[in-house]
Amino acid sequence: MTHHDQALSREAFEARLRNIGHERYHDKHPFHRRLHGGECTPDEVRAWVVNRWIYQSRIPMKDAAFLSRVEDPHLRRIWRSRIEDHDGGVAEGGGIRRWLALARAVGLDPDYVASGRGAMPATRFAVEAYVRFVRDMPLLDAVAASLTEMFAPAIHAARIEGLLRHYDFADDAALSYFRTRLTEAPKDVAFGLRWVLDHADTAERQDAAAAALEFKTDVLWAQLDALWHGYVEGHIPPGAWRPGEGMAP
Amino acid sequence: MTHHDQALSREAFEARLRNIGHERYHDKHPFHRRLHGGECTPDEVRAWVVNRWIYQSRIPMKDAAFLSRVEDPHLRRIWRSRIEDHDGGVAEGGGIRRWLALARAVGLDPDYVASGRGAMPATRFAVEAYVRFVRDMPLLDAVAASLTEMFAPAIHAARIEGLLRHYDFADDAALSYFRTRLTEAPKDVAFGLRWVLDHADTAERQDAAAAALEFKTDVLWAQLDALWHGYVEGHIPPGAWRPGEGMAP
Repeated sequence: MTHHDQALSREAFEARLRNIGHERYHDKHPFHRRLHGGECTPDEVRAWVVNRWIYQSRIPMKDAAFLSRVEDPHLRRIWRSRIEDHDGGVAEGGGIRRWLALARAVGLDPDYVASGRGAMPATRFAVEAYVRFVRDMPLLDAVAASLTEMFAPAIHAARIEGLLRHYDFADDAALSYFRTRLTEAPKDVAFGLRWVLDHADTAERQDAAAAALEFKTDVLWAQLDALWHGYVEGHIPPGAWRPGEGMAP
Repeated sequence: MTHHDQALSREAFEARLRNIGHERYHDKHPFHRRLHGGECTPDEVRAWVVNRWIYQSRIPMKDAAFLSRVEDPHLRRIWRSRIEDHDGGVAEGGGIRRWLALARAVGLDPDYVASGRGAMPATRFAVEAYVRFVRDMPLLDAVAASLTEMFAPAIHAARIEGLLRHYDFADDAALSYFRTRLTEAPKDVAFGLRWVLDHADTAERQDAAAAALEFKTDVLWAQLDALWHGYVEGHIPPGAWRPGEGMAP
């Protein structure tokens, strides 16, 4: 990571953050190229759905961990919408229920996916590292880590297009998670980015915020590395989902 | 605390929990008798408002700490309503904004109260102990600790009646926090009590849940002891609110 002795201007610091995405966001990972290019086997897609569930379903816990440390009611009120987006209401559900629609579309039993049983330990470790980071680190670092959402709309748009073109299971219902995120993520990013630019007002804080964003790109990248090793190269770890398991009855 | 070798029946265990309220809930504390009986000076009321703000305003953080540990989306969706009740929306606010209406009614500057500056350290320590308890202890203990709400409607009804009768500042706007809790608390209690009765299915878990509820009554009682010592007996600790400070301009 680059270190600076003097605080960058607001614009230069934003450029520094965006450059982290250009260099390290998981849209560059070979698994996503494979997925969006239609080269994944149905079981590779299923392995991705099973594992990514862990990340999706822990996001509200991560945001609640953040809320639990915020003394400013105004900031809490704004941040709470992230939990609402992902969990939704008792009846209608939210983003994580939409993820289970994707699970159903690729032939998996949604209850199996929701149980989390088939996820690889490496997936859990990466996701738990993120939740712990948000629970333990300064609020600035926690907000900065969320800024990978800056880079998400592009990957979601590419994913919707690629999945629709290449896979039979893909339709509007299956992909509703990604479509909804296209409008939810920019609202969160607009607030989070402004908050980080407001609060990262020294070189030291800018370095911390940039390191947090890099850490978060590591969390995302590590999940795809594990997926590639396990399911593309075929080294499925003990206890993890195996093709044929957890299919819809 | 009583220990039992065998799990009590559901009914007997509920009675054991309710008995903790009869013996230890802070409606028995002399400060509340003084407050509801019209014997508090205006400054004693103000000291109560300044200090109790710390408790009110940390309740959403406590509930977020709970949410951050819940892997079941259904339980998260139900529990989230507690945060919504207290924080409310960006525009309309919630319970803690209603508390600031009470602050205004007793002549305090709501911004001063909201800053938390005048609260006694003993208040903070008690409240922080509660937030930490919910963050660190098993979920059963955390839910059981919330069950002091079982005893709250009676104290809120007595408080509304007593304040209206005895104090000039008291009107519907000033007391709207308590009136709203009259309907919110029973909904939370109905869910929380059922959850505790469902999950405290061994003698050991029943003891843990009862201990958690006793701990919570300690958290509430300690705040009133500190208030009595500081403002009724007149031993205000260094840095805490003093009469005349933080008044509305």
